[in-house]
Amino acid sequence: MMYSYLNNIELEKALDIFLNSIKEECISPKTEEVPVKDSCGRVTAEAVYAQMSSPHYNACAMDGIALCAKSTFGATDTTPVVLRAGKDFVMVDTGDPLPEGFDAVVMIEDVIDLGGGTVQLVSPAVPWQNVRQIGEDICAGEIIIPSNTKIEPAAVGAMLAGGVTKVKVWKKPVVGIIPTGDEIVPPEASPGVGEIIEFNSSIFRSLLSMWGAESRVYGIVKDDMELIKQELEKAANECDIVLINAGSSAGRDDYTVHAISRMGKMLVHGIAIRPGKPAVIGIVNKRPVVGVPGYPVSGIIVMEKLIKPVIEYYTGLNLQKGETATAVLSKRIVSSLKYKEFVRVKLGAVDGKLVATPLNRGAGVITSFVRADGILEIPMNSEGYEAGQEVKVQLLRDPEEIKNTLVVIGSHDPLLDVISDIMRRTGRKEFVSSSHVGSMGGIMAVKRSEAHVAGIHLLDEETGEYNVSYVKRYFPNEKVVLINGVKRVQGIMVRPGNPKNIKDVTDLAREGISYVNRQKGAGTRILLDYLLKKNGIPASSIYGYEREEYTHMSVAALIAAGSADAGMGIYSAAKIYGLDFIPIWEEKYDFVLYEKYLELELVKHFIDILKSGEFKDTLKNMGGYNTDNSGEISYLP
Amino acid sequence: MMYSYLNNIELEKALDIFLNSIKEECISPKTEEVPVKDSCGRVTAEAVYAQMSSPHYNACAMDGIALCAKSTFGATDTTPVVLRAGKDFVMVDTGDPLPEGFDAVVMIEDVIDLGGGTVQLVSPAVPWQNVRQIGEDICAGEIIIPSNTKIEPAAVGAMLAGGVTKVKVWKKPVVGIIPTGDEIVPPEASPGVGEIIEFNSSIFRSLLSMWGAESRVYGIVKDDMELIKQELEKAANECDIVLINAGSSAGRDDYTVHAISRMGKMLVHGIAIRPGKPAVIGIVNKRPVVGVPGYPVSGIIVMEKLIKPVIEYYTGLNLQKGETATAVLSKRIVSSLKYKEFVRVKLGAVDGKLVATPLNRGAGVITSFVRADGILEIPMNSEGYEAGQEVKVQLLRDPEEIKNTLVVIGSHDPLLDVISDIMRRTGRKEFVSSSHVGSMGGIMAVKRSEAHVAGIHLLDEETGEYNVSYVKRYFPNEKVVLINGVKRVQGIMVRPGNPKNIKDVTDLAREGISYVNRQKGAGTRILLDYLLKKNGIPASSIYGYEREEYTHMSVAALIAAGSADAGMGIYSAAKIYGLDFIPIWEEKYDFVLYEKYLELELVKHFIDILKSGEFKDTLKNMGGYNTDNSGEISYLP
Repeated sequence: MMYSYLNNIELEKALDIFLNSIKEECISPKTEEVPVKDSCGRVTAEAVYAQMSSPHYNACAMDGIALCAKSTFGATDTTPVVLRAGKDFVMVDTGDPLPEGFDAVVMIEDVIDLGGGTVQLVSPAVPWQNVRQIGEDICAGEIIIPSNTKIEPAAVGAMLAGGVTKVKVWKKPVVGIIPTGDEIVPPEASPGVGEIIEFNSSIFRSLLSMWGAESRVYGIVKDDMELIKQELEKAANECDIVLINAGSSAGRDDYTVHAISRMGKMLVHGIAIRPGKPAVIGIVNKRPVVGVPGYPVSGIIVMEKLIKPVIEYYTGLNLQKGETATAVLSKRIVSSLKYKEFVRVKLGAVDGKLVATPLNRGAGVITSFVRADGILEIPMNSEGYEAGQEVKVQLLRDPEEIKNTLVVIGSHDPLLDVISDIMRRTGRKEFVSSSHVGSMGGIMAVKRSEAHVAGIHLLDEETGEYNVSYVKRYFPNEKVVLINGVKRVQGIMVRPGNPKNIKDVTDLAREGISYVNRQKGAGTRILLDYLLKKNGIPASSIYGYEREEYTHMSVAALIAAGSADAGMGIYSAAKIYGLDFIPIWEEKYDFVLYEKYLELELVKHFIDILKSGEFKDTLKNMGGYNTDNSGEISYLP
Repeated sequence: MMYSYLNNIELEKALDIFLNSIKEECISPKTEEVPVKDSCGRVTAEAVYAQMSSPHYNACAMDGIALCAKSTFGATDTTPVVLRAGKDFVMVDTGDPLPEGFDAVVMIEDVIDLGGGTVQLVSPAVPWQNVRQIGEDICAGEIIIPSNTKIEPAAVGAMLAGGVTKVKVWKKPVVGIIPTGDEIVPPEASPGVGEIIEFNSSIFRSLLSMWGAESRVYGIVKDDMELIKQELEKAANECDIVLINAGSSAGRDDYTVHAISRMGKMLVHGIAIRPGKPAVIGIVNKRPVVGVPGYPVSGIIVMEKLIKPVIEYYTGLNLQKGETATAVLSKRIVSSLKYKEFVRVKLGAVDGKLVATPLNRGAGVITSFVRADGILEIPMNSEGYEAGQEVKVQLLRDPEEIKNTLVVIGSHDPLLDVISDIMRRTGRKEFVSSSHVGSMGGIMAVKRSEAHVAGIHLLDEETGEYNVSYVKRYFPNEKVVLINGVKRVQGIMVRPGNPKNIKDVTDLAREGISYVNRQKGAGTRILLDYLLKKNGIPASSIYGYEREEYTHMSVAALIAAGSADAGMGIYSAAKIYGLDFIPIWEEKYDFVLYEKYLELELVKHFIDILKSGEFKDTLKNMGGYNTDNSGEISYLP
């Protein structure tokens, strides 16, 4: 039961070792000749020189008449010059060769036709005017683009204009991807318990394609040393670079490092980054080989930080063009001194400042990368950052998009997904980002200008009223408004047929009932607490009271899977999962925001959506909602 | 002889008319279903919801033992808990389903093996620790990405993890490109006089591919109304968008506007932009049709400003992500009040400021787009900008690349191409940009901090010495150094066999000799003037003295084509064009720069290149150079 990594090497050093070994020991990057017309986006492997001048003859640059400039000298309004066709001038069109003996073109608009083959000019021409002289654009023998230059559309045109029809470029490296693991199955299969869908190779393939590399995905290989070695040998023959996915750690069934060691040279095992530590770097059959960790987030970080520079070396492309922005951190982040850490963050542009909120740091949470707007890098030997600190964030999205994003933080309701989608369909430049931190978390986010809007459903236990008293208490003397969201039914979700025969909250404390709760500050939890108190039930008597989930959906998912017997939530979530639903309470789910935000186009659009037929129809289908007053302002201070 | 455009409509208005007509009258953008694994870079046509939770079972997140957290409560160093295999715990690997009845995983590193199937723990487990609960990543029914969202690699993974294997995306529009013109020939052909290589369609195809559209290039169509109408009809049946290239102006042979009018609806002819005015917008067979001007630069501007927004509409992509930068203008630019003008500029980052230098504004000069680092937009009703004014430039290159570019402005020599290429091969992040404005222009550019280095060859008529006296005169009391470039042979270039029997400069004034000169301030022109003066020949006696070219190569190209009989230049240019060469003079071509720049990595690299064997060997092959002292510092103040 002793496992250990061989190294905990700094990223920069690991990369140095890797790139130097590749340059010294691996097969050199290959080149190929491609037709210039198909070369856009490729990188030149040698300088491209013009084979031909462009234009390759003196060309008329205007529709008009070609003439000898000398014959027009002295022409004015009062002393016009008259010229005869065929002798003194010739009619020409743009692109025509300048006729022999002439050295200028006068545009047709300036030519007065006198009839009978004669024309009159009232101003002199300058020699070589309106003539595109030979080589005006490119001279034969001149460089068009140097080596190692990405070919842009204009360069395609310039090469063709310069008589170059083929160009030598760096060949796209072929990256072999070997997915391994007893438990993984292809995305097509319907996975059973214990089976994990293999989607990493599709992520890697997508990244590689964006980076200008090709990829070849091999079949899934079981956790078996011999099988892995066989596949590695095959891939190291057929490809330029090989990735073995998963099995790169130091566990019982992790054979990647051993396979690489036995078949070639292991350079590094274990890099001081998080996520991504269990990576293996080596060389097999003169090809770079990387053991990429299995968790998708770790995998992407290793692809970005370790594989991308290798792809740059093979393709000649400059792929490190990331933009950065300075943002204020909304929460403290603690980091280990031992690792450089990469934290995905959401960015919100609210009230003129950019706020970074760390996302779920779990290495298995691929959606955190989908939702991320940026990556915050925490160096080794740093314990992390404090809330309120200014940090530099590497952007994953266009800054314009971040600016055009309505930030909604607070209680979760699936209707936020609906709004987000309608926003994308009706205003293509606008986005909604929503984070689920509960109603109280939402109020705090609005107060700290980390969100434009918070979704809340907070019951005042004394008055039985929703939301208003909370807004008054937390925003005293501030100009804050409440917008009607929906009325919705809260209840207890149970498995179909209600096998444990649960009728109301008092049943939740029964022996043998496993409950799943929402996180502290969630309106649904506050409602439960209110009902428990009313019924004199101590929270400690409920098994699973401490088991927290952040959304109605995840509560429903656990119940549907049999991992819990009951949980409170809204009807629409129960319906999606085919659960039985015991209605308990109708509540108001509203939106709180500073009055000044009513002026924002994003907020106007948001309110329009709440009032729209499309929104109301969709919620009707989802069930459990009353949208009669959605979008109306219900409270002004 | 009366031609006229129908309109001179503002760009924004033309675009509005176009997009609105497309939305109202054209076939709607199409959708298609693609496999998720191949969907990266596409845009969702509808929201994507998870079909399955991920994980879809409670999964162990560590290699270790699964147990019931309760059974470990109270464990400490002094009161360890002992557990029995099979009963109290089960061995698990990462990804295994959490066995029934257990609610936590303890990682293997924290487990003390006592042998005999028992283990010991010295700290308690927390319920659900190291367990990836159902839906931790994604819950079935949750939105993964909304409509109209570009699919990034992580989203590919998230969709597959959420059980989604197919996704509805916007279909890539197919853009038909019809090249027209009597004079144009395919790039494969060796063009004769009056024939122009058709390269625009390759530029447009490259742009469209970058923008996520497909293209179909039709054969070249002659300037014939019926033929153009036939091809337009075909393309408007087969494609989603049609571009007719050239013939969009109002000349004799310009049929585009008429073809569109007869077959459909003409919306706009003539847009108030420069270059790009002669564009036509219309609709044929419910497809948008654009007549794109023939000059490549005009064509690119029309593609960028008029076609790109249409592609955005069809693909759902946001393509307007251009970065901008503020730069100081190095030269005055005059612009017409009637047009919005797009001027290509080179950017130089010298001495901490960004300088924008306008490039050749000719609409036919495609290389100006290759050399451009940015586009300066001059609004309508503006007369332009003054030198020294701060302007906003839309960047065409990565700002990092601009910062890593050595700016060389001054006299032209083909050796600058050689340096530029070696720089790209030996330092992949570094670039050289060179502009040819003559030696005096170079000195001024260095003085104004618009260039790091100037290439000069300036003869002091009194001392016969090169460069030093000019540096002293133009940089009095300034810390400037001269670096040895090369010695090179200047002479008179003539056609092979020297048909006009030219022996020295005195022959240039002969009747029937046509000369081509270099621009004012060019060292070669100064040398000619010196020789003429010495021989008592007035400049006015030379036919073509006023005909100016900016490089040795373009002078050689004109002579080779028979457009001039003689011109002064260097041996290597004559050699490339197979010209005869009458040696006249050996001169020194050196580099001047401020001493402080010797510290820059870029300049150190530049000097290393001058001293390198590769550089010297290449110049030896080119001929006419002496590189014995290249790269040595020849003068320090």
